[in-house]
Amino acid sequence: MKIKVINPNTTWSMTRTIEQAAHAAASADVEIEAVSPNMGPVSIESHSDEALAAVGVMDEVRKGELDGCDGYVLACFGDPGLHAAQELAQGPVVGIAQAAFHAATLVGRSFAIVTTLGRTLGRAHDLVEEYGFTSQCVAYRACEVPVLGLDEHPDAAYEALLAECRATLDCCAADSIVLGCAGMAGMCKRLENELHVPVIDGVAAATALVEGLVRIGMRTSKRREFANPPAKEVVGLLADFTR
Amino acid sequence: MKIKVINPNTTWSMTRTIEQAAHAAASADVEIEAVSPNMGPVSIESHSDEALAAVGVMDEVRKGELDGCDGYVLACFGDPGLHAAQELAQGPVVGIAQAAFHAATLVGRSFAIVTTLGRTLGRAHDLVEEYGFTSQCVAYRACEVPVLGLDEHPDAAYEALLAECRATLDCCAADSIVLGCAGMAGMCKRLENELHVPVIDGVAAATALVEGLVRIGMRTSKRREFANPPAKEVVGLLADFTR
Amino acid sequence: MKIKVINPNTTWSMTRTIEQAAHAAASADVEIEAVSPNMGPVSIESHSDEALAAVGVMDEVRKGELDGCDGYVLACFGDPGLHAAQELAQGPVVGIAQAAFHAATLVGRSFAIVTTLGRTLGRAHDLVEEYGFTSQCVAYRACEVPVLGLDEHPDAAYEALLAECRATLDCCAADSIVLGCAGMAGMCKRLENELHVPVIDGVAAATALVEGLVRIGMRTSKRREFANPPAKEVVGLLADFTR
Amino acid sequence: MKIKVINPNTTWSMTRTIEQAAHAAASADVEIEAVSPNMGPVSIESHSDEALAAVGVMDEVRKGELDGCDGYVLACFGDPGLHAAQELAQGPVVGIAQAAFHAATLVGRSFAIVTTLGRTLGRAHDLVEEYGFTSQCVAYRACEVPVLGLDEHPDAAYEALLAECRATLDCCAADSIVLGCAGMAGMCKRLENELHVPVIDGVAAATALVEGLVRIGMRTSKRREFANPPAKEVVGLLADFTR
Amino acid sequence: MKIKVINPNTTWSMTRTIEQAAHAAASADVEIEAVSPNMGPVSIESHSDEALAAVGVMDEVRKGELDGCDGYVLACFGDPGLHAAQELAQGPVVGIAQAAFHAATLVGRSFAIVTTLGRTLGRAHDLVEEYGFTSQCVAYRACEVPVLGLDEHPDAAYEALLAECRATLDCCAADSIVLGCAGMAGMCKRLENELHVPVIDGVAAATALVEGLVRIGMRTSKRREFANPPAKEVVGLLADFTR
Amino acid sequence: MKIKVINPNTTWSMTRTIEQAAHAAASADVEIEAVSPNMGPVSIESHSDEALAAVGVMDEVRKGELDGCDGYVLACFGDPGLHAAQELAQGPVVGIAQAAFHAATLVGRSFAIVTTLGRTLGRAHDLVEEYGFTSQCVAYRACEVPVLGLDEHPDAAYEALLAECRATLDCCAADSIVLGCAGMAGMCKRLENELHVPVIDGVAAATALVEGLVRIGMRTSKRREFANPPAKEVVGLLADFTR
Repeated sequence: MKIKVINPNTTWSMTRTIEQAAHAAASADVEIEAVSPNMGPVSIESHSDEALAAVGVMDEVRKGELDGCDGYVLACFGDPGLHAAQELAQGPVVGIAQAAFHAATLVGRSFAIVTTLGRTLGRAHDLVEEYGFTSQCVAYRACEVPVLGLDEHPDAAYEALLAECRATLDCCAADSIVLGCAGMAGMCKRLENELHVPVIDGVAAATALVEGLVRIGMRTSKRREFANPPAKEVVGLLADFTR
Repeated sequence: MKIKVINPNTTWSMTRTIEQAAHAAASADVEIEAVSPNMGPVSIESHSDEALAAVGVMDEVRKGELDGCDGYVLACFGDPGLHAAQELAQGPVVGIAQAAFHAATLVGRSFAIVTTLGRTLGRAHDLVEEYGFTSQCVAYRACEVPVLGLDEHPDAAYEALLAECRATLDCCAADSIVLGCAGMAGMCKRLENELHVPVIDGVAAATALVEGLVRIGMRTSKRREFANPPAKEVVGLLADFTR
Repeated sequence: MKIKVINPNTTWSMTRTIEQAAHAAASADVEIEAVSPNMGPVSIESHSDEALAAVGVMDEVRKGELDGCDGYVLACFGDPGLHAAQELAQGPVVGIAQAAFHAATLVGRSFAIVTTLGRTLGRAHDLVEEYGFTSQCVAYRACEVPVLGLDEHPDAAYEALLAECRATLDCCAADSIVLGCAGMAGMCKRLENELHVPVIDGVAAATALVEGLVRIGMRTSKRREFANPPAKEVVGLLADFTR
Repeated sequence: MKIKVINPNTTWSMTRTIEQAAHAAASADVEIEAVSPNMGPVSIESHSDEALAAVGVMDEVRKGELDGCDGYVLACFGDPGLHAAQELAQGPVVGIAQAAFHAATLVGRSFAIVTTLGRTLGRAHDLVEEYGFTSQCVAYRACEVPVLGLDEHPDAAYEALLAECRATLDCCAADSIVLGCAGMAGMCKRLENELHVPVIDGVAAATALVEGLVRIGMRTSKRREFANPPAKEVVGLLADFTR
Repeated sequence: MKIKVINPNTTWSMTRTIEQAAHAAASADVEIEAVSPNMGPVSIESHSDEALAAVGVMDEVRKGELDGCDGYVLACFGDPGLHAAQELAQGPVVGIAQAAFHAATLVGRSFAIVTTLGRTLGRAHDLVEEYGFTSQCVAYRACEVPVLGLDEHPDAAYEALLAECRATLDCCAADSIVLGCAGMAGMCKRLENELHVPVIDGVAAATALVEGLVRIGMRTSKRREFANPPAKEVVGLLADFTR
Repeated sequence: MKIKVINPNTTWSMTRTIEQAAHAAASADVEIEAVSPNMGPVSIESHSDEALAAVGVMDEVRKGELDGCDGYVLACFGDPGLHAAQELAQGPVVGIAQAAFHAATLVGRSFAIVTTLGRTLGRAHDLVEEYGFTSQCVAYRACEVPVLGLDEHPDAAYEALLAECRATLDCCAADSIVLGCAGMAGMCKRLENELHVPVIDGVAAATALVEGLVRIGMRTSKRREFANPPAKEVVGLLADFTR
């Protein structure tokens, strides 16, 4: 089984962190291919970044299909391009926000999101609602560390994140914490050990979910919405995406 | 006042139809600039098309900001790139699905969507839910005419659309019909005359809403989520979007 | 185009404030007729007041129909008699709570209501839910200044309102503030200048919306619920309302 | 214990039917006073009728307070003036739509509404949502018999109502039928015998609920929203309602 | 009329308190039979306790049917076994959580739950949502007194409960307080006198509701879900439940 | 890794079918232990059956904890005793309804449930709502084959199930079918081959989910609701459950 883990931003040091988390989450016989697209923003912290990143995600999925990938993980908490990727892939495609919410609601009633920048919480709201977890998500919080700050100043970032997690648990009855950025994957177990509640890294959760779906033969429904998109001319800068 | 009407697809014949609808909806002293981006799909009928079209929308909004546009209409029923555009613009940005839902709920309790291809109804569901109109939208229907078919075979398209609208009204108590494609703008009044309920073209609705918001001095909130996005390097094919 | 702006209470000094706000919001060629009914409570601060005010609203709408009004604004934040007015009018009728919620959700994700007396927030809850904005309205607040206090002690009222708005923004992530009383119309821009988020006056918003709907030819659906009500004898004090 | 049953319309023959249903539902030692207001429409079939009827309801409640009534039933399926009545009364006030929904959800998961005219179903939707029963109400149906038709042509009305109930049960899994008009009270048991599911008359349900609430000493909360409304001048035709 | 009040736990001193509350809530001619099952946990403070208690509830209902009981009250705030009891009984069965929520929403817009242990609030959430009162329940609170502590240390328990109720009212706009344990029945009126808002004991509310439903001839719908369950072999320890 | 798969009914032939489905879904190195409790109903087709089955589920989980099981699957579509099991277990516990809904929403927008008896659909509604999938579940259907009929007359059962699935897909836009009984596990792939949409067997889905959760180290949150329940005396027939 081959799972392609796409880091939608173009910072390869983060891609390596993500790759490690995916490897640790998969069975020994699962091949993990972790990549960043060759186009797009170096980090994703706004709707504009999400829109730009989605194009690179699409590019990597169509390449993955040619390579025979069995499933895909989209390793950015905004799940950019998820629905487009589901149209393009035959196997399952799971975003890490989506995966984290699913995992959280399997091990408790309620969860809280703790993410990087507060400005991205609107996107988190939309995803929670679309996936069906509005009642279960009891807090939306941000530690106000930028995405690349997780890599560049890991100790300070960890302290800020830990403090925000503690504050979150103090003010609400969440059963678990969902980490709101793929770049936090390496801090997950350390946080869990300190906080004594499940702390959920979406990269691990998504990898486990995709592996499971592939193992039981589940693929994205091609009945209507997620059928392969019809042939279409695309012009200008994006002409290479003509189908 | 200058309103830029962006047709997110790259078919200029459709852009002309949209321009006429926007002109008819605006006060005489409002300048309408209707454009298609210079990149992107020729029509938008899938999540993949939406994702590709969003890039062109962003490009046109950033150009519009340099040109001093007061507000923007996104003239595709999937409202592609709306939130990114709101980040980039100072004035209001309104999508035609959004506008049509707002208008429909101002002239009745309930509405039905009648769109082109059934595969796009998932996107309509997401938009209805995000904007808050889940209780009011009582039917999601498709006439299964492709977007470009509206232009190429207008008579057959009109008949198919009329038949679907009639079937919709027969089976549910909708107070109005929302047309699910900017390319249907030219058929709106003719349908209304035959159906005896309000038939809502989002292009007209969005133009009227943007004009009104601009006139009363309302601009997108820049408090947090829709603040201008932070400086960011973008690489590869999309490097020109570096901020 | 002639828009009738009905202040459902019978305090004409407030009607004059409302008229100014409506004038400022409309295009130059729109005729604004601002009135109070000749019956009803001097201010509206309870369900009982709302019920009494609705009768005067109905009276003014039926007179407006004889006068050829193209649309109506109901300038009280409880939108009293809105659905009855929609039955009686051919053109659009928009309440200022309704309009403010629509406008707020066009310029941001979330809004907070700041109104006069806390006892009226139940009505605000009902309107938010009925119109579909439950997810978007993130705070219901009151400055506990009575409606007529806005007129009688404008400086003190302004300070109390400003303080409540600041407290609201401190405790929640609202993208904008919706003012919960037509009598606050004159304070809107001053508040916006101090608070640096959109502050929304429903009178301006409703006037702009009605003008836009009339311009694009949209009228209340007469399909079923809002069809003109059947002939009916009314007895006693209200016999004049026999249809 | 004295319960005042207010028929919000001014057709006393219907008030007598309602009185019988209330008597049959109350314990032997409960005094039932059934009245119509001395003002208002002869039947209630539109939002306009509801608005006019609410004034008479308020008038009867304030008289009831002087008479020492312990609780109130509002015997019209639109529950007109309910919140105003709750402000004015010390004891509980229950509308028959409200009561029927509560009763239905105590004897089954789901219910269907079968009412008189389809144009009133919008009001039913609003009440169902406000009271919290959106998930439980699985059908909104009308037999298209006008309210006064129930009195004037009882046999034909019964047949039309029975046919609509049967059609309703055939097309949905409702556990019970809620009758959508106080004028149907006399037909309830006969329908139940034919349909073999609970058929719920709101007059009986509301009487039983009010009696129970009074017996256990429950009164409307006067904490904030439903506190007695503040003193207020009312002018013109309604001046008598000055508090 | 004979109403069986089942205390699902096996602590008879609590059953006596419940019996008194039920007697006080019923009309003089209603026979109250209050029992604990002869199997099950001595108090109910977890999902595990609920599951065990449900078996005893079923046992008492089937005995009640043989005894000709007209209706049932389940006197534990988790409403354990409610749906099973509805299948087994011909008359109405009402849980005290269910009854308290219904009563609270008849005397105000909003309510707060104040219960024993915080760990049971998840169950309260599920019940509130299932019964339809999500919008109305504005706070879920616990005084962290165990169920049996109410009996064993009534003064300390009362003080803790009072303090939690006061804190609840200070932080939210609830119109009333719902007590989250049958063992609090004896403290209800004293709390109400101190708090000046309705304080709702579910035992009283459920008794009044069941009496009312029986009086008007309402029985659980046997159409589908709550029809008597089909014959079934049950093996092992529970073999006596073979039907 | 050792996963205990509990068939909550006591029909061991069905337990063997379930065991095969679980084996097929798990990685080669996962040990599957499939059991039925030694008490409880032979099939589960009512709330009464669910309540009785929950006791046996609890018994098997406490035995599993002594045996060092890493996670649990509850293989009945009503997920009986799930929350109690979560309290008792350290590792994850997943019900097959829960698992099927999660899997369905990972491979499509919408799903339809096709179950055995229509009377169990109320329970399905409750689970869908509690888990958060109300918007995604677009049809609740039953083929009216009893649970044991699946075993006893497999060919007739298959035909009835296939026909119901086809009828379901004809009348709604579901992206996938969720099978509503563990006893249907053996028919899943055959149905999928005929229907050309994902057909989801909860046993496979739950096994894959539990394996994934265990592999990434996720355990049920013990913060509050699902903490091990406090020591408690249980009397009578169930005294063995004293903790």
